[in-house]
Amino acid sequence: MPANTVVDANRDRHWMQRALQLAASGEGYAEPNPMVGCVLVKDGHRIGEGYHKRFGGPHAEVEALRSLPSIADAESATAYVTLEPCCHFGKTPPCSQALIDAKVSRVVIAMQDPFPKVDGGGLKALRDHGIEITVGVLRDEAEQLNAPYLKRVQKGLPWTIAKWAMTIDGRVATVDGESQWISGPQSRVHVHRLRARVDAILAGMGTVLADDPMLNARLVDDDGKPLTPPRVANRLIFSRGRLPPRDSKLVCTAKEIPTFLFTSPFVDPDERAWLEQAGLVCDAENDSIEGVLRKCADGLHGHRPATNVMVEGGPNLMASLIGSQPEDCLIDEIHAYLGPKIFGGATAPGPILGSGIESLAVAPQFRLIMIDKFDDDARLIYRRQSE
Amino acid sequence: MPANTVVDANRDRHWMQRALQLAASGEGYAEPNPMVGCVLVKDGHRIGEGYHKRFGGPHAEVEALRSLPSIADAESATAYVTLEPCCHFGKTPPCSQALIDAKVSRVVIAMQDPFPKVDGGGLKALRDHGIEITVGVLRDEAEQLNAPYLKRVQKGLPWTIAKWAMTIDGRVATVDGESQWISGPQSRVHVHRLRARVDAILAGMGTVLADDPMLNARLVDDDGKPLTPPRVANRLIFSRGRLPPRDSKLVCTAKEIPTFLFTSPFVDPDERAWLEQAGLVCDAENDSIEGVLRKCADGLHGHRPATNVMVEGGPNLMASLIGSQPEDCLIDEIHAYLGPKIFGGATAPGPILGSGIESLAVAPQFRLIMIDKFDDDARLIYRRQSE
Ligand SMILES: NC(=O)c1ccc[n+]([C@@H]2O[C@H](COP(=O)([O-])OP(=O)(O)OC[C@H]3O[C@@H](n4cnc5c(N)ncnc54)[C@H](OP(=O)(O)O)[C@@H]3O)[C@@H](O)[C@H]2O)c1
Ligand SMILES: NC(=O)c1ccc[n+]([C@@H]2O[C@H](COP(=O)([O-])OP(=O)(O)OC[C@H]3O[C@@H](n4cnc5c(N)ncnc54)[C@H](OP(=O)(O)O)[C@@H]3O)[C@@H](O)[C@H]2O)c1
Repeated sequence: MPANTVVDANRDRHWMQRALQLAASGEGYAEPNPMVGCVLVKDGHRIGEGYHKRFGGPHAEVEALRSLPSIADAESATAYVTLEPCCHFGKTPPCSQALIDAKVSRVVIAMQDPFPKVDGGGLKALRDHGIEITVGVLRDEAEQLNAPYLKRVQKGLPWTIAKWAMTIDGRVATVDGESQWISGPQSRVHVHRLRARVDAILAGMGTVLADDPMLNARLVDDDGKPLTPPRVANRLIFSRGRLPPRDSKLVCTAKEIPTFLFTSPFVDPDERAWLEQAGLVCDAENDSIEGVLRKCADGLHGHRPATNVMVEGGPNLMASLIGSQPEDCLIDEIHAYLGPKIFGGATAPGPILGSGIESLAVAPQFRLIMIDKFDDDARLIYRRQSE
Repeated sequence: MPANTVVDANRDRHWMQRALQLAASGEGYAEPNPMVGCVLVKDGHRIGEGYHKRFGGPHAEVEALRSLPSIADAESATAYVTLEPCCHFGKTPPCSQALIDAKVSRVVIAMQDPFPKVDGGGLKALRDHGIEITVGVLRDEAEQLNAPYLKRVQKGLPWTIAKWAMTIDGRVATVDGESQWISGPQSRVHVHRLRARVDAILAGMGTVLADDPMLNARLVDDDGKPLTPPRVANRLIFSRGRLPPRDSKLVCTAKEIPTFLFTSPFVDPDERAWLEQAGLVCDAENDSIEGVLRKCADGLHGHRPATNVMVEGGPNLMASLIGSQPEDCLIDEIHAYLGPKIFGGATAPGPILGSGIESLAVAPQFRLIMIDKFDDDARLIYRRQSE
């Protein structure tokens, strides 16, 4: 490669890195849209930048153009965009047109948008107007960033994050069923941050009965004052027979926080009517977990399509999510918190019960993508290894 | 504190840090002696340094004095030593005397040596010769470094390191008992390094029968050529009845690597005689695990006192090590390796089986002291939280 080309490639990666960083600021706000960042560069200097700040708001390219002192500054600039600019009228006019109108001379794009209404259309529009195009700069990073969006668009399933807190010896409860608290306060702050950016939180009836959880995000600022979370997750409870107690926290708050109960058609109809009266949405269609996840990705009962869902357990619900063959595994990401204790005990549950994976060769494989230490807790984040 | 004193304290910590770093180089070689480092400083410059390189070899102070171009250079110098200099004739003459003879004017010591033959005697000897003494600089670090030595001297027990490799969901084997390999090659290199510096490796008969392990350190250099480990650990096998197969790797190599079988007095006497003939030492005194550990700390059948022992499992032997109350727990340190897989399964074993700790309040507590990433494996090192 000639020296000049190397320098150019490094420069492209540098600005794309910044665009990706900006894009990531939209996490929890942009979904079900992808996170997108845009940097405008002229004569080697960044002249403007922006990102898609919230669903329904202006796209990254428009934000970047608006950040300029004058739109005329964009002429002959290079735009770095983390995702192919859109070419359709959605909630906002097409971004490819905005870039064309602004007379940028080159657009560098990390990856194409597989969304059917875009999928190369943005590229074509730009090219038709004689704009130079480079695609694929930091593609892996961009795909990792928007993996949840890509999963929803390509597979019709939400990105499923399993979270658990276990001891050093892999237990989520003692032999007597005690589980609060395995991890410390700092770890719990991070769990609340995750709850605050996902579209749905899933739990099994066992966890509801054992812990009477709220399954909502309780964020506070440094002074302990409550903060508004980026979004409020729907709560999805799974049961094949048992119903939540009338005085459980979930039932008592079902009018404020959308709460769905996926259960069997054979539950007591009177109790079910009472719970529906109390605000619970009961779905007795006997869907598989995968079926429910597909409903989530489409949008549950008029709710927004779910990009990220989080499974808070317990171990029997987790078992339904992993299946017995690697291709059945519905878990895309794991947030495993390890608390600095040991419980031991043949009957103390691990995070995933059920019949388990039979042989090592077919065990679902993950990549370790992040390790954090919160006091004496460790948080390990894994993503499913793609085949 | 006056500014000068602050500067002096910082300077003392600086040199003691270097002495601790030197001391740590003796790990695996110095035991059953403590690891000790020594730095000689004059006019603000390091003029010499040394550490206790191997059991039976010269002590750190002597190594440091010998590193000087001339012994006369030591006059009026300050010696930084990580442990109180000895005052008794052991394998080498007393170090306090060597420092006195060398006419150092000040000795800075991280911690006193609780070893009965020293325990303040070294300090007294120095003080009696008018040498200025400062004790306690980086004491915590020094105590952490020599925690295994301190445990043996103060409690008559070796430092017990539990090592296990588990999946992200805390399983050491699948429901069908498959366990090789959960962690990857890089992790296994580190396990071999640990095996190469401990005095004994413990395993239960279940592991021997399931995995036919060698339980020895196989270290290689970058070209794959075998390296000599710092020491060869005794292999200690626990059983209450079953005996190892004649063709197992442990039995076949028992003449080369000391191998002890702790079993019951009721095992088949002929088979026992055969195994002893093959080189195994059979101990049928029905000691508790703690009893066996005490024997190790004293020196097993004429072997050196054991400072560090490592437990390689399996989960039933681990259960014997944790007991049911925090004060029963014999584990001082845990090396937990997490392989990037999930197994699930109610009957897939965790690293510690048995009856388990009943309530969260009495679960043994640890501090997370180190996290490493080896490819997609994580290694978490914990030490028991002192009460
Ligand atoms: N440390 C942690 O991170 C953590 C997190 C959560 C829970 N836990 C602990 O785990 C324990 C609870 O364990 P668990 O296994 O009983 O809880 P669980 O998995 O939350 O609940 C199991 C129940 O969920 C329902 N269920 C599971 N799979 C289903 C499926 N595919 N379709 C429909 N319903 C399904 C069934 O309810 P029905 O029987 O009613 O049909 C099943 O009995 C508690 O001790 C809790 O504290 C720990
Ligand atoms: N992933 C890992 O890090 C790892 C490490 C080791 C093992 N493993 C797996 O664990 C499984 C083996 O499990 P396991 O629980 O059977 O193995 P184990 O703990 O090695 O062996 C249990 C046996 O050890 C003896 N034993 C235990 N405690 C004793 C005590 N206090 N005094 C005297 N003897 C005692 C008993 O032998 P008798 O019944 O003969 O009396 C007992 O049956 C295998 O699948 C192996 O691969 C995994």
